[in-house]
Amino acid sequence: MRIGELSRRTGVPVPTVKYYVREGLLPPGQLTSPNQASYDETHERRLRLIRALLDVGGLKVAAIREVLAAVDDPARSVHDVLGEATNSIITRYGEEADDEAVAARAEVDALMARRGWQVDPDNPAADALAAALAALGRLGHGGFARVLDDYADAAQTVARADLGYVAGRAAMDDLVESVVIGTVLGDAVFIALRRLAQVDESARIYGAGKAPR
Amino acid sequence: MRIGELSRRTGVPVPTVKYYVREGLLPPGQLTSPNQASYDETHERRLRLIRALLDVGGLKVAAIREVLAAVDDPARSVHDVLGEATNSIITRYGEEADDEAVAARAEVDALMARRGWQVDPDNPAADALAAALAALGRLGHGGFARVLDDYADAAQTVARADLGYVAGRAAMDDLVESVVIGTVLGDAVFIALRRLAQVDESARIYGAGKAPR
Repeated sequence: MRIGELSRRTGVPVPTVKYYVREGLLPPGQLTSPNQASYDETHERRLRLIRALLDVGGLKVAAIREVLAAVDDPARSVHDVLGEATNSIITRYGEEADDEAVAARAEVDALMARRGWQVDPDNPAADALAAALAALGRLGHGGFARVLDDYADAAQTVARADLGYVAGRAAMDDLVESVVIGTVLGDAVFIALRRLAQVDESARIYGAGKAPR
Repeated sequence: MRIGELSRRTGVPVPTVKYYVREGLLPPGQLTSPNQASYDETHERRLRLIRALLDVGGLKVAAIREVLAAVDDPARSVHDVLGEATNSIITRYGEEADDEAVAARAEVDALMARRGWQVDPDNPAADALAAALAALGRLGHGGFARVLDDYADAAQTVARADLGYVAGRAAMDDLVESVVIGTVLGDAVFIALRRLAQVDESARIYGAGKAPR
């Protein structure tokens, strides 16, 4: 199909499609004449993936480039591929070395030991967790650590559902893409559900009166 | 304290502090002479909150302005305040009206009915959830709906911990700030924990060999 048809099918404007090609997110079309290219269903699918990562996942173009590189990598061990795909999504923070950062790091190590999690201590998600806990500590919310195990319980529930869902999709060739989609959009799904469950919980505790049952 | 001291204590460069004042995120200091202003601990605390929302929460400046407006609002009913504080954080998406959007919206309504959640159907988090599910559907992951109740279980676990944590902080005057901090940084905490739990779960299922126990 021509670029106009690709744009019509996906709702992505033509100049934006061209921008994604220039940025290396979308492979160029097959040249059919010196200034006309032809696109196929793989382009359409990739374009939908880019938009989902941007619009729903809130990823930046540079992060999407990294994630798509993992998607396009030839398959290695499932565990390695899963690790790389998720590592390329996690936010990385600058290092700080104040008391809060040290305490938060110890909290993370203790949590992982307590739960027997088989995770490399250098995993970027462990750094991200420590950074979030350190930020809470700096804001006077060090007490948040008391609910950390409730969060970890919930995270395990979700992770089991995630892995079960991915295992249910047989084809290895779309495994990494499934992991990326499930990870980024799964975050968005969980965050929205957390808000809804908070509203419900708040209505039950504090009484909403007008809220429909 | 002077702006230089405020900058030193928080690690935020002086021009950035001035930018936050111009953007209305940080109240101006008390003028002590025509071109010198004095800042106090409330400025220091607000500056840390802005940085946490930006760096860990990934919020944009416009969203932070909206959130801080909720924080600075005179207190109303706890339930209303909680709702507004979280509504101002949720991502809003453009409307699409394709088959996937219709199916996703029906899925969300069915979920809320099934769980008896006391939530206004117009809650922006319900729209955000529908948008994420519609994006999954467009990418061929409509089957993700099968794990939605596992996600909802996890979200309820987290929401109960959240409300319990907030209730444990007695002072009403920092309630909204606590909710904002807990909501935004809690998302970051959960997302990092989900990655770690996925790695652990993947190691158990697919075998990692080298991963430390």
